[in-house]
Amino acid sequence: MRNLKLTLAYVGTRFAGWQVQPGRETIQGILEDRLSGMLGEKVRLAGAGRTDAGVHARGQVANFLTAAPIPGIGLRRGLNARLPEEINVVAVEEASETFHARADARWKEYRYRLRSGEGGTPFEAPFTVVVHGPLDAEAMRDAAARLCGRRDFTSFCPAQSEIEDKVRTIMMSEVLEEGPVLEYRVRADGFLRHMVRTLVGTLIAVGRGLVEPASIESILAARDRRAAGPVAPARGLVLERVSYDVPPATGDAGGAG
Amino acid sequence: MRNLKLTLAYVGTRFAGWQVQPGRETIQGILEDRLSGMLGEKVRLAGAGRTDAGVHARGQVANFLTAAPIPGIGLRRGLNARLPEEINVVAVEEASETFHARADARWKEYRYRLRSGEGGTPFEAPFTVVVHGPLDAEAMRDAAARLCGRRDFTSFCPAQSEIEDKVRTIMMSEVLEEGPVLEYRVRADGFLRHMVRTLVGTLIAVGRGLVEPASIESILAARDRRAAGPVAPARGLVLERVSYDVPPATGDAGGAG
Repeated sequence: MRNLKLTLAYVGTRFAGWQVQPGRETIQGILEDRLSGMLGEKVRLAGAGRTDAGVHARGQVANFLTAAPIPGIGLRRGLNARLPEEINVVAVEEASETFHARADARWKEYRYRLRSGEGGTPFEAPFTVVVHGPLDAEAMRDAAARLCGRRDFTSFCPAQSEIEDKVRTIMMSEVLEEGPVLEYRVRADGFLRHMVRTLVGTLIAVGRGLVEPASIESILAARDRRAAGPVAPARGLVLERVSYDVPPATGDAGGAG
Repeated sequence: MRNLKLTLAYVGTRFAGWQVQPGRETIQGILEDRLSGMLGEKVRLAGAGRTDAGVHARGQVANFLTAAPIPGIGLRRGLNARLPEEINVVAVEEASETFHARADARWKEYRYRLRSGEGGTPFEAPFTVVVHGPLDAEAMRDAAARLCGRRDFTSFCPAQSEIEDKVRTIMMSEVLEEGPVLEYRVRADGFLRHMVRTLVGTLIAVGRGLVEPASIESILAARDRRAAGPVAPARGLVLERVSYDVPPATGDAGGAG
């Protein structure tokens, strides 16, 4: 069997997220359907990040096992020809037989785009959340930096979460400013459900002056969902990149060329 | 009566173009409907450029007469709250009573975005036309420059056009290159129906080596639609800006602030 690694970009606006759900259009569901049709066998994809409904990706990674001898370049082109234009296969690579897109991810990077006040264009609207009134970017940068490290993120995921271990390591957490547009960039070894959007909701509260940057410590220490801010809207979020320790590719099967 | 000048941005993908058509969703139709609802009077808009179905705008201009005393800023905000997110009012200004968005335009600038080969993302797909195979950007630049000046553009508009005078002046016609992405920028005192897209279709033929840059002269001289290239797809085209000789504003009625 071959193990193929796909790098994927998508505009998530009209989809019900990554994960297969009966009767809903999902990224995983559409990809599995098109792959199965092309290869003449039932394909099951493992995705690195289970992006929510409305969330986008520039560098989602998924893998699947197949016996089909199709070259990677042919697979990428054939798949792109069959996919809706919101979903694009950026690269196809041969991976080692044990490679797993989720289990082997060293870190994932998400980006979240905010605009403070009016002046946005309809070109950026599907990828940008507009916050009314000014945002204190300096306070947000301060708060963002305080999120770094190995922490218990219980306060930043739904209270009814079934996951036991809510300790994750954030190795990058920063706010970039370009005029009225702010971009939050965060890298971690793993993310809990709604974690990035709850971090952003909390950073917005900081930017509005409702929460002190130093309060990040007590919000984390509370281990209580009610301590953090609201879940920010999905449209501002992009899964930017997934990184792996050891390059999973044993050979280029028809990459981005 | 007040004469209000609107600057508009829109993503044209799902609309049947600028101009009102019975039973179709058009930019002008939606704007007139929302304006009429807000102001409690029948509003008729004059637009600077009649963009085709699927064409976008960053700086379309329109004007309308109204007796309503609403401040410009309130009009802009109220209208944006009522419009679909693909359409945005960028600015509202008071214009002189004789100002007419189309008749008074000194020039309009359109931009057209092409990608040669694969590698595009779904984020840019709605605004970019993918051309398979390489494009000779240098030859396209050469051909683009030859379009400048006061010329008869009969070869670049539909044969059955009802407009008598097909002489227009192009004062800017250039091809910008950024890696595999090419952008054609063109400014003229007026454009015929399908003119920009036919110029682009012809430039693509030049880029592919099917037409010599120097043939632009004979294509213009032919005054025959069959001499030029095909009409390039609408999605790559953006009405970027409309410029007026004398600033039409007699005062800021609630601009972009």
